[in-house]
Amino acid sequence: MTGPVVAALGGGHGLAATLTALRYVTDELTAIVTVADDGGSSGRLREEFGVLPPGDLRMALAALCSESEWGHTWRDVLQHRFAGDGPLGGHALGNLLIIALWELHDDPVAGLDLVARLLQAQGRVLPMAAVPLTIEADVSGLDPADPDAVRVVRGQATVAVTPGTVETVRLVPADPPAYPESVAAIRSADWVVLGPGSWFTSVMTHLLVPEVREALEVTRARRLLVLNLDPGTGETAGFSAERHLETFAALAPRLRLDAVLADPAVVDDAEHLAEHCTRLGASLFVATVGRRDRPGEHDPLRFAAALRDIVTTSRPAP
Amino acid sequence: MTGPVVAALGGGHGLAATLTALRYVTDELTAIVTVADDGGSSGRLREEFGVLPPGDLRMALAALCSESEWGHTWRDVLQHRFAGDGPLGGHALGNLLIIALWELHDDPVAGLDLVARLLQAQGRVLPMAAVPLTIEADVSGLDPADPDAVRVVRGQATVAVTPGTVETVRLVPADPPAYPESVAAIRSADWVVLGPGSWFTSVMTHLLVPEVREALEVTRARRLLVLNLDPGTGETAGFSAERHLETFAALAPRLRLDAVLADPAVVDDAEHLAEHCTRLGASLFVATVGRRDRPGEHDPLRFAAALRDIVTTSRPAP
Repeated sequence: MTGPVVAALGGGHGLAATLTALRYVTDELTAIVTVADDGGSSGRLREEFGVLPPGDLRMALAALCSESEWGHTWRDVLQHRFAGDGPLGGHALGNLLIIALWELHDDPVAGLDLVARLLQAQGRVLPMAAVPLTIEADVSGLDPADPDAVRVVRGQATVAVTPGTVETVRLVPADPPAYPESVAAIRSADWVVLGPGSWFTSVMTHLLVPEVREALEVTRARRLLVLNLDPGTGETAGFSAERHLETFAALAPRLRLDAVLADPAVVDDAEHLAEHCTRLGASLFVATVGRRDRPGEHDPLRFAAALRDIVTTSRPAP
Repeated sequence: MTGPVVAALGGGHGLAATLTALRYVTDELTAIVTVADDGGSSGRLREEFGVLPPGDLRMALAALCSESEWGHTWRDVLQHRFAGDGPLGGHALGNLLIIALWELHDDPVAGLDLVARLLQAQGRVLPMAAVPLTIEADVSGLDPADPDAVRVVRGQATVAVTPGTVETVRLVPADPPAYPESVAAIRSADWVVLGPGSWFTSVMTHLLVPEVREALEVTRARRLLVLNLDPGTGETAGFSAERHLETFAALAPRLRLDAVLADPAVVDDAEHLAEHCTRLGASLFVATVGRRDRPGEHDPLRFAAALRDIVTTSRPAP
């Protein structure tokens, strides 16, 4: 297997699911990972060391560990969180491994490449931006007395679970620099895959980094947006598939898509959704990619089959 | 290469030097490591998690990392200590990796075997005892007004740097259990190597664990004691080579040795030292094993050559 060159953008469990599935499709895989987490272990490490939050990077590395007993053990160890509420309690071992390499190497990209080599990871993991980011959202519906009132909610961890309706998101700082390696990976890919994942806090964030958005606009790659498995909880509670596409278009009006993948669970009216996709330049692919036994989780093989069908049917124009 | 089956007992830099050298001599290597450290990262982890102190185990694992760029990178990462004085500051990454595996596996020996496998370490690393230990020393010479007064000094980190003279050491608890795997490794070896290292706090400690001392007494293996490169600092300041042997005999009067290795730097009178060795049943081997450019450090290849000469000339009786 070699397969098409794919750059997968996102964060958290969503990106991990995409990477796990894409490994059945190609060996040429780069993850471009959000660096706006401010909660839990990542939040504490940002504070202690002033570094990029490592949590989403760690999850991507864990998803790229090899399919051997050795690789699975590493994956479990990376994801392991220390017990208790002492100084180490709650920290994921993989986060600490990344920080160690960042202390040993001035360049975070070189450090991540070394972590990947130490773990014999089957792909590359790069940060979306070169500075730690904070997410700021305008949220309505938080005040029962005044449902239209908009409040500013700060922090990925807080925004992700807001009971209100996210109207829009911003990054602080607003124009963060990106790493040349991340920009190059997007520009030189055959396919770029965005999502699934926490819509505003893990997926749309990439559109808010100017160099990343621009790379997405000008890349020769075809662009696939993967919608979430469920219609939305927390930050996107009650959002239809169409509304997900609208938020995307609002944040990156010049960005054209080639394909949108949706599980039937989130498709109310396929024709209506397909029309929305067409407006973005995209064909709609509806395929069952969720697990039967655990709703809300991706089935790696079904997800892989759907991704393969999309990325191998049509190659980008040379 | 396969080579003789060797169990190396000790801790800290001394054991790491022995393991580094023994890797040129044999593939059949087990380290049996003191677990009495109570300072620094190990001390904090004992307190936070109630586990065996991982520091000396980590150093042994680092010394067993493979001789490749990959192995060297892992070695450096294991030994890396986090910067600053925050919650993570001063912790060695390798210590945290060991703790993670101990949380994932109830059996500390199984956890260490998994760490070794994850690192593709070229040997096995086992704890000297199954419970965290505290070292207690009777120390004279601490009171200028009364040089014969003996005070009790507690803790490996404190004993190791005492300006007084260590008269004897004890463990708390006094009769700690050992792991069957450690006992078996000593009993089934061709050679057992003790030292070099901090004499009372890393080397002689093994004689204070009843099951380990008994295994050393009854093993079919030949026994080699490696004296330190310098005549002693801290806990053994001013101790002659002969005095090192006397402290050994005092703590394990029934234990016979087959060989003693000494660098010429610590041999004042070879004939006199050889007589002392004979009383313990041992032949004296004098060989330069220190580095020319960095006094006090072992030269891996010279040390390896001396160890090879000793362990390959005479095999144990069948």
